Amino acid sequence: MPLTFAVNVVRTNEIRKDPIFNRWVLFSPARSKRPSDLKSSNPNTSSNSSTKTPACPFCIGRENECAPQIFRVPPEESVDWKIRVIENLYPALRRDLNTQERGGGGDVKDVVSGFGFHDVVIDTPFHGARLSDLGKGDAGQVILAYKKRVLQLKEIDAIKYVQVFKNHGASAGASMSHSHSQIMALPIIPTTVISRFESMRERWIATGRCSLCEIRSEEILIDESSHFFSIVPFAASSPFEIWIVPSNHDSHFHEIDQEKATDFGGLLTLTLQKLSKQLNDPPFNFMIHTSPLDLVDSAQHYAHWFIQIVPQLSTPGGFEMGSGCYINSVFPEDAAKLMREVSIET
Amino acid sequence: MPLTFAVNVVRTNEIRKDPIFNRWVLFSPARSKRPSDLKSSNPNTSSNSSTKTPACPFCIGRENECAPQIFRVPPEESVDWKIRVIENLYPALRRDLNTQERGGGGDVKDVVSGFGFHDVVIDTPFHGARLSDLGKGDAGQVILAYKKRVLQLKEIDAIKYVQVFKNHGASAGASMSHSHSQIMALPIIPTTVISRFESMRERWIATGRCSLCEIRSEEILIDESSHFFSIVPFAASSPFEIWIVPSNHDSHFHEIDQEKATDFGGLLTLTLQKLSKQLNDPPFNFMIHTSPLDLVDSAQHYAHWFIQIVPQLSTPGGFEMGSGCYINSVFPEDAAKLMREVSIET
Repeated sequence: MPLTFAVNVVRTNEIRKDPIFNRWVLFSPARSKRPSDLKSSNPNTSSNSSTKTPACPFCIGRENECAPQIFRVPPEESVDWKIRVIENLYPALRRDLNTQERGGGGDVKDVVSGFGFHDVVIDTPFHGARLSDLGKGDAGQVILAYKKRVLQLKEIDAIKYVQVFKNHGASAGASMSHSHSQIMALPIIPTTVISRFESMRERWIATGRCSLCEIRSEEILIDESSHFFSIVPFAASSPFEIWIVPSNHDSHFHEIDQEKATDFGGLLTLTLQKLSKQLNDPPFNFMIHTSPLDLVDSAQHYAHWFIQIVPQLSTPGGFEMGSGCYINSVFPEDAAKLMREVSIET
Repeated sequence: MPLTFAVNVVRTNEIRKDPIFNRWVLFSPARSKRPSDLKSSNPNTSSNSSTKTPACPFCIGRENECAPQIFRVPPEESVDWKIRVIENLYPALRRDLNTQERGGGGDVKDVVSGFGFHDVVIDTPFHGARLSDLGKGDAGQVILAYKKRVLQLKEIDAIKYVQVFKNHGASAGASMSHSHSQIMALPIIPTTVISRFESMRERWIATGRCSLCEIRSEEILIDESSHFFSIVPFAASSPFEIWIVPSNHDSHFHEIDQEKATDFGGLLTLTLQKLSKQLNDPPFNFMIHTSPLDLVDSAQHYAHWFIQIVPQLSTPGGFEMGSGCYINSVFPEDAAKLMREVSIET
């Protein structure tokens, strides 16, 4: 759908808060020029072939077609890279803006500068490999690359929250088919994150327990590893939505250590393999829900990070958009039972 | 994507509240059997041809293939109908459940029975006609059909909120291509609606004004009629998101009278025609954001209904899902200017 129009006003990024929905919106004119390598491709973009496609700048050997590199794994240039963390060529936030609040068209508190970071983690040098194809150790390395970048971003005073996520497949919002994840560092704490914390705080006040510490039950459990467990949450918003939760009450994703990262990488890839087998390689998103970088001591009681995996099996419509309610046709207990029974050869 | 599995447990509808995201989810096993007449059709499903397709139960002459009718316009059976309000054959809520709270797998307060109503408004008897093709008077009749049904649902004690919406096009969630709208009557007030009211209340306390009464400004204004105006909101979540707002401080959609309904129908169809011309007949959703049916007196100050129209031009990904923030590449002021300049022959 072409957006054809000519506007002469030069604008720069802004983040605006809608006073009605109490939500933040990132305005990013540069994003309208973003290409999409998936729009015209055939459905089998995630086939297991490891050949590189001529047009893919994320493939090994094409590093100079990308935005600047932030770091690579391993760091030694003498060997091939396994993971690269780079700037997004079409960032939704700009690292070169000053971080002062500005007025814009609304109240001062409703507009802040569109300062921030929008980075890309290239999970693998090989075009056809999916994250779920990586071994436990390599997947753990991707997790540690996320962690390293979050720790770097944490050092910047103006950054309040970091969202790590992955879009897999065009209908899950991926504009590049080569397996990658994204990291966005925001100068605001999103209202959704605030609501999540308020909700967890209320539960903690009412029960004295952390919502995620008490979430695990046999009916919705799928798998468990040394340090994590996977479940279909009691009120999953869509069929086969899955959460992987640290068994310990850990507040921040970025505190994960190497042993836990490898363990997490193993459970994450197992879960993605099961989803792929059960649902025929569906498009999906995953989001790491962590805590704001500055966490007051009292919030430690109910702050518990986790990852949410959502296969895209249906299209949300006006009901979901209007009410914020979702419609799900598969009960979590049934989805969990099926996921427990999917066998993956290891 | 086939969801093939066999589960022996018989379940009935439930609505569950997620304590983490503070959101309600409607569990509806029947929805998994829902057919989709758009999945295999060609893109030109909304062409202007008025011939009926053999398979469409919404077309005139096929009334017996539909779920039961609630009412029709005009009511006289001696003339052809112009609008039919019927039950949804695959409802996400069930009108035959009792409305008592039930325990389920979580806390009592986190689960209520999936009681409610899920109705369909067939906007026109003709398969190829879009809502925007209707004249002001006929569109006004559709608005009055919404109103009549909301007033009926309002009489049911257990119903707390009514969501009226439209999905146009498969990628906006429409499973039938024949122009229709939907009405869902819920036994809960969605948390998104509560958040919206809390946000508007805060603004009212801070400024003494209703957020929507003060929203109008020249830069973002598109059109105005006798009783309504259309704008691209200051923090639009996507390019060309448009709101149509009553100029008077009216709290409930269902209080609209015939004169205002015709006026609203005219501005709504004009806006949809402009969107269609500017964006090449995009898929879109619209949602009527009204007030909870039982509104305390003190909320009258900041309760103001409106309709939100969102063309589907991009796919939300993990960032939007994770943070609740949106990314928009077109500034509202620019979108409003373009929309002001689209000429429609009347």
